[in-house]
This record gives sequence, structure tokens and C-alpha cells, in this order.
Amino acid sequence: MSEVLQKAQKARAAARQAAFLTAAQKNKALRSMAQDLIQNMPVILQANAEDRQRAVRNKMPSALLDRLTLNARRIKGMAAGLRTLAGLPDPNQRILEEIKRPNGLRITKIAVPLGVIALIYEARPNVTADAAGLCLKAGSAVILRGGSAAAASNKIIADILRQTLRRQRLPEDIIQSIATAGHRAVAELMSLREYIDLLIPRGGAELIRRTVAEAAIPVLETGTGNCHVYVDSAADLRKAYNIVWNAKTQRPSVCNAAESLLVHRAVAASFLPKILPALTAAGVILHGCAETRKYAPQVLPATAADYGREYLDLEISVKVVGSLREAIEHIYRYGTKHTEAIVTENKKNAEQFLREVDAAAVLVNASTRFTDGGEFGFGCELGISTQKLHARGPLGLREMMSYKYLVRGSGQVRK
Amino acid sequence: MSEVLQKAQKARAAARQAAFLTAAQKNKALRSMAQDLIQNMPVILQANAEDRQRAVRNKMPSALLDRLTLNARRIKGMAAGLRTLAGLPDPNQRILEEIKRPNGLRITKIAVPLGVIALIYEARPNVTADAAGLCLKAGSAVILRGGSAAAASNKIIADILRQTLRRQRLPEDIIQSIATAGHRAVAELMSLREYIDLLIPRGGAELIRRTVAEAAIPVLETGTGNCHVYVDSAADLRKAYNIVWNAKTQRPSVCNAAESLLVHRAVAASFLPKILPALTAAGVILHGCAETRKYAPQVLPATAADYGREYLDLEISVKVVGSLREAIEHIYRYGTKHTEAIVTENKKNAEQFLREVDAAAVLVNASTRFTDGGEFGFGCELGISTQKLHARGPLGLREMMSYKYLVRGSGQVRK
Repeated sequence: MSEVLQKAQKARAAARQAAFLTAAQKNKALRSMAQDLIQNMPVILQANAEDRQRAVRNKMPSALLDRLTLNARRIKGMAAGLRTLAGLPDPNQRILEEIKRPNGLRITKIAVPLGVIALIYEARPNVTADAAGLCLKAGSAVILRGGSAAAASNKIIADILRQTLRRQRLPEDIIQSIATAGHRAVAELMSLREYIDLLIPRGGAELIRRTVAEAAIPVLETGTGNCHVYVDSAADLRKAYNIVWNAKTQRPSVCNAAESLLVHRAVAASFLPKILPALTAAGVILHGCAETRKYAPQVLPATAADYGREYLDLEISVKVVGSLREAIEHIYRYGTKHTEAIVTENKKNAEQFLREVDAAAVLVNASTRFTDGGEFGFGCELGISTQKLHARGPLGLREMMSYKYLVRGSGQVRK
Repeated sequence: MSEVLQKAQKARAAARQAAFLTAAQKNKALRSMAQDLIQNMPVILQANAEDRQRAVRNKMPSALLDRLTLNARRIKGMAAGLRTLAGLPDPNQRILEEIKRPNGLRITKIAVPLGVIALIYEARPNVTADAAGLCLKAGSAVILRGGSAAAASNKIIADILRQTLRRQRLPEDIIQSIATAGHRAVAELMSLREYIDLLIPRGGAELIRRTVAEAAIPVLETGTGNCHVYVDSAADLRKAYNIVWNAKTQRPSVCNAAESLLVHRAVAASFLPKILPALTAAGVILHGCAETRKYAPQVLPATAADYGREYLDLEISVKVVGSLREAIEHIYRYGTKHTEAIVTENKKNAEQFLREVDAAAVLVNASTRFTDGGEFGFGCELGISTQKLHARGPLGLREMMSYKYLVRGSGQVRK
């Protein structure tokens, strides 16, 4: 039997137990996991150094190397995430709705665990701890399939967390980590309908495309964010400057970073000569329309491919538009329904943008970087969903739940 | 360009308009649709008679022929469903949650339409009106692909509803009906990721299996219901008799009919000699375990395949179990997570069953037939979801919605 099938079967069996753990058991385990990660920091860093040395030899791009890298601060961040989870209310068995029917039936809709959640992700080892903790708290088992570039880091983190569960006499099989490299293992995982309830691909566009095309299991798509900032004619340009700067440069490798800047023609002459040189000075490569290029000679000509691209790096497309309508249509055409922002002091324009732009998060006068489980107050997250089904935007604890209807009667039959 | 692609593109364009229709516009349209169905009853019945004659020639099984048949009562039922929808609150833009963050960001989670919903269903023409009405009210466009056995009925119903929209100067392209027969059209529909947001297969197990395996679009599985009634040792046997009778015989062709009866050994001798002859007298074919067969000679031996089967007809499997635990384990093994019922006067047993059985609906002392959008108070429904993602149980109006986050700031950037 393959590693994947074996672990999927173990996860399925453990999921039934995970669903009935008490909040106290789960929270105690999460706090111990946090402690164990901190205590084992030297071995985690050692494993991560191995992964990083291999990545550097393989000439991994800098944005990806940033995601792969663990340090004391990031490990403390992982531990803090687990402690945050421990402090959140238990989502399992939460009453969502109560219905009383005329025939006397009492219907209660309650949140229940999804069962077995499989995560396929790239070389970002902090996801291992986040996902294991979040799924445990959600009462589900988890199957982790991290990128091979982070194999050593992922293995040590999963081993530590399983050890914590074992020491607490909880079923360690709630956490499964797949070591087998290569696409065949992933393909097998995506076929195991009987054992896995939900598949979350977290990573680049190609991983997500492949998962959606191949998986026989329900998928939650995450991550591809071609996020726009639209600077309206009624924008406060100081706010616009700060927001564009933050959205593009604060952490360019993540999905909620801005990838495209739209500027209303009425403010182009006052705004672009300020923001463009500043971005260039920060190392941002600019691709702009003809009008944009009049304000800064270093701007490369933008193609349709540029407007559709998620750079995930210090690179951005820029376009001057004639109206709010044109901005909305541009976003409809090129956006990925992740996060879209308008900067404006005009309430009517703001409300029109909020209403007409279809994305997981639509922001007024705030950086796109806020589309994040932590920033929304959800605690940890498993990514940002860009699909419309089940959950949209940050995937926190509550988004990892299903529900069921409990119906209490006294002998009712249907007429 | 194929009919499917052309209609999918029209639906996508119409979906943007559907999302911004006011509640008054939609409700007026729904009431007119109801009226137009009643007024056009003769032509609908004529088209349905054509379909039925062909079905009878093709020796369609009686349960399917029942689903195909329209009569005055059922057309009035379709109209009533549309009027019910008109009376329900508008689900679009409903505020689901408001969050105020310490940094001053105000986050509002609101319900928004899914966009384009495609329905693949078998020969059940009332679904055409239900689905069109429900998707309209939900602010989405709909692509209907009914079974070819009901082609004439579906076409006339869709034509009437589109005419109603046109007369009200609303975009008739919100309702699309695919006429092309054969699996190729369905396969094409399942591939159109760019134009369709959700695919709902509604029908037999094979249709659903194929859709899940082939679709590149998110799917909501519906329908397969291997529903059990468990008669506990502490059951009120009069209630048990009524519930089993109702769950099996009231409308055996639907997914919430009971397909398997579990009886605790302690009450087998008092219950089975009453219920089994009654079921036989009603024409129900019985498949039972050895112990069941001691109580009635006409019971055929049950195989594992019988316990796993959704008969959708006057046929049931019966098993005597030694404990509540054994009943729960049997349901875990053979159930399809649709609807499971216990008959018991013991509160502890009832609560254990409610808690441990994982299904869309778990009932105590009520017929499985109650798992239904109408019975739950949702108005119309598009089927019963048996998957755990997005929506479980009856798919009513609210289940056809997505959501988005509106974030209002005053220049916030991320630290």
C-alpha cells in the first residue's frame, strides 16, 4: 500500500476521534504544540538550513526563498498562531440557527467538522504548523503535502506536533505528513474521494490550475491575487501614496500584494510623478500604458499579459483610466476576485466600487495587504479563497467547518 | 460556436445584470412567471404528454415516469413555488456579519450572488421552473440542462419563463436552457470554468459520479440518499410503525425516502411481525438479515449490496442490530450522509445518535421525508446536498449565495 493511501486511511479513522475532542483537550494540545516548537527551535532551524542550502544551490528565486526561510521570529510566529487558536472559541457544535416548524419539528443547524482536510502547498514550512493547528481546532484530521523544497523543515515540524499529541494521549494520526516526492503522490492524493473531504491547494497559479483540473475531491482554490489599487479622481493623494507603497512593497511575495495600479486621469499628473520614482527607487519594475510612460521614462510598455499577471515580486503594472467605470471594467477583465481597493474621499464612488466590484474583499482607503485571517480577526488562516463556493477570502477556523441539521420530533410523518 | 458555449457566454453577461436587480423587480417577475405557467397549462401538458408517450414507448421504469409526469396539480405546485419565492426576503446584499478592527477598519460581510449556476438534471420538468425561479431570486443566471426524456416539457417551460422576463424588460438571458442532446453537450458544460461558477447535478448516482469526476467547475453533489430508520430498544412502536411506513411508502422515488430499516433486537419480536406484513401488503420488496427473515417468510436474504443500495422504489433492506452502537456503525458504513432517523423515547440515545451520526439531517422521531427545503421553511429548493462543502441538506435560496467582505478604512496601511 502506498504511503499516501495508508496515511489517508489513518486520517479518516482519526477524523472520527478528532470530531469528538473537547475544547479543553484541543486547547491544551495547541498550547503544548506551541511550546514544543519553541523548545525544538534549534532542530527546526537546522532542518530549514538544509532546505535553504539546497534551494540556493538550485537557484530558487528570492521571493520563494523568503517564503521558505524560517528564523527565530517566524518560529515564534508559528507558536503564537497556535496559542491564538487555543484562545479562540471552539467552532465545533456551534449553533448556527434554530427553526421551529408549525408541525412541531424543532430544527437546529450546528457546525460540524469537515472530516479530513488535505493541503497541498509549496515551500512555506510555517503552513505546516498553521494548518495542523487549525484543522485540529476545527475537529478535522489533516493531510499535509508540502513542497519538496521544504521537505526537511516540514518533516521535523509535523514530527514535533505528532509527538505533542501522542504525549497528551490524543490520536497523533490526526496529523499526517506525506513524504513521497513527485507528482504521482499528489495525483493519488487528489483521487482519494473516499478518505478526503476537502483539498486545499495553496501556492502558485499552476499548482491550483492542476489541482482543480485533476482532483476528484471538492477543492478550495486559494491564492492567485492580481490585486488592484485604483486611485480615484477624488482620492486623498497622501493616503493613495501610502497605500500603493504599502500594498506593493511591504511584502511583495504574498497574494494580497498589489500587482496593478489604476489612476484616474484627473489626478495622474499630480500623483504619478510622485509615486513612480519612489517605486523605482525601491527597486520596483514598472509596466505602464502610454499615458503613464509620459510621467516617467523608466516605465516599460505594458502589454495585456502584464495587466493579467501576478508578479509576486517588486514589479507592477500601471494604467491611467478615464473614469471609475473604466477602472471597474478593467478589474472585471483582469482581476482574480481576490482583493481590490479604491482610494477616494467621494462616498458615492466608494459605495459604487464596493457594490460593483466582485472580489473576496473590496476595500476603500486601505492597503490590499489587509486581506488576511489575522488582520480580519480570525486568528490563523489556511490561505485566501478566490472561489465563490463555500468560503471566500481568509480561510479561518469557521471556514473549515461544515454543518448539519438536527431535527427533533414527536412522531411526525409527512402528509 | 456550440449552443452550450454561446448560452454560457450569454448567461455570464446576464449574471452581472441579475446581481443588480432590485427585490421588487425580481418578485414581480416571479409572480408573473407563476401566472404565465398557469395560463399556459394546456401547452405545457401537451408537451409533457409528448414526453410521456415517448417514455412509455421506451419502457421507462414507473418511479422515473412518476417524476416525469406533469398534471394540473403539479403545474400549480410549480407556480406556488415561484410565488413562495417572491414572498421570501431578498438574500442578495444581506449583511452576514460586521467586524470592527482595533486599527479602525470596518469590515462588513455581505451575501452576494454566485454568478452563473448550471443545473444538470434528469427527467423532472418541475425542476426547470424551480431552478429558474430560485436562481433569479438569488441574483444569479442559470443554465438548465434537463434530461432528454423531458425535452419538450423543459423547452416549453423555459420559453414561457424567458418570455415573462422579456415582457417585464428584464434580461431574458438570465435563464438559459440547453437543447443539444447527448453527453458531449454535458461534457462541454462541465468544462466552462470561465463562464460557470457552480454546477449542480441533480439525479441518479451515475450522473453525480460522472459530474464529480469530469467537472472542472465547483460541484454541489445532490441526491443520493441511502436513508436509514433505526428503531431503538426504547422506541414507541406506534410512532416507529408510522414513521417507517411514511418514510418508505409515501413517495418512494425521492431521495429522502427510507431505503433501510434497522431494528434493535429487544423490540424485533414485537415490531417486525407488525411492520413487515404491512410493507409487503403495500407492495414493498423486503431484503433482510437472517434474524429478520425469521419473522416473515417473504423476506429475501439481504447482501452487503442491498444495505448499500438506494432503491428509489418500493423496496427496502432490513437488519436487526444488537445495540445503538451497532446501528451507528452500520450507518457509518452504508449511509450516504443524506438523512438518518432514530425512533426512541430515550433522550440519551437520541442525543448520542444526533451527535455521532454524520449526515446532512439527523432526525429523532420523525420521518426521513422531512429533509426538504419546503419542510424546513426555505421555500423552493434545488435538491439536497450530500457533500460537506458549501451547503449541506436542502439547497434553498441562501445556499445559492456567496459572500464578500467590504472593508472601509481611512488610509490604513499594514505595519
